[in-house]
Parts: sequence; C-alpha cells; structure tokens
Amino acid sequence: MQPVTEDNITELAVERWRTAHDPRVAELMAALVRHLHDFAREVRLTEAEWAAAVRWLTRAGQISDDKREEFILASDVLGLSMLVVQMNHRLDPVATPATVLGPFHIEGSPELGFGGDMSDGVPGTPLFVHGTVRDLDGDPVAGGVLDVWQADTEGAYESQIPGLDEARLRARYTTREDGSYCLRTIVPRGYTIPMDGPVGDLVARTGISHFRPAHVHFLIDVPGYEPLVTHLFQEGAEYLDSDVVFGTKQELVVAFEQREPGATPDGGTSADPWVEARYDFVLQRQA
Amino acid sequence: MQPVTEDNITELAVERWRTAHDPRVAELMAALVRHLHDFAREVRLTEAEWAAAVRWLTRAGQISDDKREEFILASDVLGLSMLVVQMNHRLDPVATPATVLGPFHIEGSPELGFGGDMSDGVPGTPLFVHGTVRDLDGDPVAGGVLDVWQADTEGAYESQIPGLDEARLRARYTTREDGSYCLRTIVPRGYTIPMDGPVGDLVARTGISHFRPAHVHFLIDVPGYEPLVTHLFQEGAEYLDSDVVFGTKQELVVAFEQREPGATPDGGTSADPWVEARYDFVLQRQA
Repeated sequence: MQPVTEDNITELAVERWRTAHDPRVAELMAALVRHLHDFAREVRLTEAEWAAAVRWLTRAGQISDDKREEFILASDVLGLSMLVVQMNHRLDPVATPATVLGPFHIEGSPELGFGGDMSDGVPGTPLFVHGTVRDLDGDPVAGGVLDVWQADTEGAYESQIPGLDEARLRARYTTREDGSYCLRTIVPRGYTIPMDGPVGDLVARTGISHFRPAHVHFLIDVPGYEPLVTHLFQEGAEYLDSDVVFGTKQELVVAFEQREPGATPDGGTSADPWVEARYDFVLQRQA
Repeated sequence: MQPVTEDNITELAVERWRTAHDPRVAELMAALVRHLHDFAREVRLTEAEWAAAVRWLTRAGQISDDKREEFILASDVLGLSMLVVQMNHRLDPVATPATVLGPFHIEGSPELGFGGDMSDGVPGTPLFVHGTVRDLDGDPVAGGVLDVWQADTEGAYESQIPGLDEARLRARYTTREDGSYCLRTIVPRGYTIPMDGPVGDLVARTGISHFRPAHVHFLIDVPGYEPLVTHLFQEGAEYLDSDVVFGTKQELVVAFEQREPGATPDGGTSADPWVEARYDFVLQRQA
C-alpha cells in the first residue's frame, strides 16, 4: 500500500487522472490537478476556506438556470473568458478583434433587410450602425450574416425578461454585394452584472467596478472566414476603462454621432434626432 | 484606455482582485486568478472545453442538495481534500494521522455507554472496536468524546436514506478514566462513490477505481488537543490500495479478527460469531 502524504499526493492524483482514455482528457485533468494543488499549497488553503469554496460553487450552480449562467459570469470577472477568447482567436492585427460572447446570445434571430429595425417598439434613441464587411485585402464579403443583439436601456437582454413570445433587440442582417450592411436599433447603455448571486457577493468584497460599458454584440460567421464574435462599444461611454469582464478593445470603440432629423443611412428619413455609428468589420480567411 | 491582450490580461485581472478589502481574500483571489490562467494557457483551453467545464460545474451545483455535495466529491477525487487535510494537520509522527471528513458526518449523534451498539437493528456482522485514547506521552485522555459514523453494508449512510426519523449507524462514546473506549457496530464494507453525477461521468472516462475500502469514521475533538478527523480501515479490505478519495494511511489500517461466540470486550457475551478490532488513538496537544 502506497502511503499518501502531503508531499506525494499531487503526483499520485496526477498519475491517476492520466489514466483517462482520451489523451486530451488526460492532459486536461492532469494539468487541472497540478494547478489546483499548486494553488492550495501556495495559499495554504484552510479547511474553513475550502468549505466556503464548496458552498460558493454549489450556490453558483443552483442560481443558474436557462436564463442565467453564474459560472460564465465567474469566468468573465476572473478574466478567464477573455483569455480563452484571445488564445483561440490569434488574428491578424488588421482583422477586427474578438471579444467575449457573453451568456445572452440566442440562436435563430429573425432576418431583417438592409436598415431593418431590431428595436421595434423598445424605447430608446434610434441608432443606425452601418459600414462594410471586408477581408484582409479590403475585398467586400458579400452575403455575410451579421447576428446582432444587445440589452435595452435598463440593461436587460431578451432572455432576462420573462414571458416574451417574440424576438427582442436581436436580428440577423446580410451584407450586400459591396459588403455593406445597415442595422437600426436603439442606443445601448452601460449596465451592471447581476449582483444578487455568489459572483456579485465576491465582487462586492473588492474595489472592482461591476459595470460594463455600452455595447452592441455581433457574431459574424461567414463560410471560409474565422468566425468573429465581438462587440462595438460607444466612444466616451462610462466604464470603458473598467469593463468588469475585460471585454473592451480600442479597435472596437466607435464614435456614436448625434444627427438631426433628416436622411438616414438606410435610405429613409427620420423625423426625430438619431445617432450614427460607422464601422467596417475586417474578417480573416480560415487557414 | 488600457488595451487588454492575451499577454497582459492575467496581470490586469490579478491587480483588480487585489483590491479585495480583506487582505486574505485579496491573496486568495489573486492566486486563484494566476493559477486558473496558468492552467488555461498551459493546455491552451479551447472554447468548447471551456463551455463543457461551465456545464459540468453547473450540473455539479444542481445535483447537490442537503444530502449530497458533488463539489466535495470532486475535491475528494482530485486529491484536493486530502491535501488540505494534510496541510492543516501536520501532526507528530506518533500521533494518529488525520484523513478526510467526507460529506456524511451529522452533528448531535446519540451518546452511548461503553460497548453501546450503534448498529441497533441494522443487519450485519457484529463488530467491536475498542482500545484507548492517549496523548503523545502515553497518558490516558479521560472523558474524551469519540464521534463515530459509518455506512451500512450496502454503502449507504444515514443521510442517503430518505424518511429516517432516528440516528442510524452513528453515535458518540466517551473514554473512561483509563482512556479506554469500546463501541459496537457492524463490519463495514467497501462502496462506490455516487456515479450518477458529473463526478461519476468524469471518473468513468478514466481507469480510476471508483470504490472506497471498508472503513469506520471517527471525529475526536477533546479540549486542549488537536481535533482528529480520521477513519479506521479494515486490514486486507478491497480497494485499500486504490481508495478513490486518497484517504487511506498505513497507520489507520487495523486487523478485523473473527471471534467465536463468547465473551466480548464490553464485558458481555455474544451468542453469535463477532469481529474484534483494537485501536489506540494518539492525540497531540494543541500548541
């Protein structure tokens, strides 16, 4: 019988998990054991702290449901989500950079035409976002689908509002032959992450700002190109410097310019003041 | 605005969590971020693996309830529980070593006298465990309370059996003036950890044996001494070499000797064959 000691337990556990049938699972589990033990040794984790961590993890699982994922939020505020995004999308510096997907994307959004209004009755200042989708050489990407979603001015995404039976503040737009796109929505606002769960409890014990700056989400998945998950942020918005999920990038910050009533980028006219944001996305071909 | 890159995100996240108001929380969170990011970088965690981990953690929280704690089980099978026990109980080599508490201890067990039967009607072979509790100098520890619990021969602990309204296979015994104790129970058997949850799913993808060797749990918490949480294991039992939670120690393995009907260590007699296990616990005084 091999004695288990404080000195050899890590190696024993690593060896055991290396028996995973799939080599990648073996690699992941062995590394996980090593790093978990290294952490516990470095801080000399107490039994009370260990028990508190168990309770925290359990609560995070139990507060999660089909509309809320506390572990994604945890990963976001620890910078892990953004690290994983960056490691898996090492794009050309000219390409539009990726950022976090977040927990609020919904599949199957309605398809709208050029300039179609995805805010459809949700109160807010009209915002047109338009520009082109091109490749690294500047050639237009025609027929590319932009899947777009955002929160309302209270910071609520569709999935956070009970009882809805139609899509809200989300839509899919297709680029024209010249790569151009145009969408209509409302000006987004910064919002707080949910603070009523275990992640919020932890953040509240620090000096960390729990807000995200105003942004619109994009998922642009065109065959032959690296799929791009990103946001556009409003220039000058609060919290750009302190995004709680580390998602902001200078290249994704766009001027939101006030416009008087008159002609709009969709070819129509607006009787009310509106806001214009121009952005040209650059996609990288798949290797 | 500070750009967030794959290279600087760890330092940014560490700095942020260092703002925790409590210095120990700051230390724990900064180290957690660093080790978590190191793990993700080392294995170059993919987005699909990250998403699988989120689902796994959520499921672990959701399968947990007041009778089951999947995160304790996860910690156990990763060797983390035993590492934490050992770091926090660096005892004299002469003292009885500690092992994991496990998730099945229940407070407030009934008090039984010398030789009292904690199995009380639960089927199994009678087992007397007896011996002394002494200090490092060999002096008896009188009036010390041994809190004892175990599984039945199917591997079920009291908390796993719905609808019970009285204590089952658990009791508290007090040492006599000479440090002696004697308890009556049934011979335990090895059992599997629960395999119907996310921990079981993961273990099933490896060559890891998912059993624990036969054991009886002890918690001996005597004022002035280091509290001792430990097990006694049956010598020769299956799985001693492969305890799924890394809990076995040579010093905790005890001969379970078959005895013919006749006089028993409680001063009585048994009409049936019974089993005897002798063990002398050694406690270390608190510094």
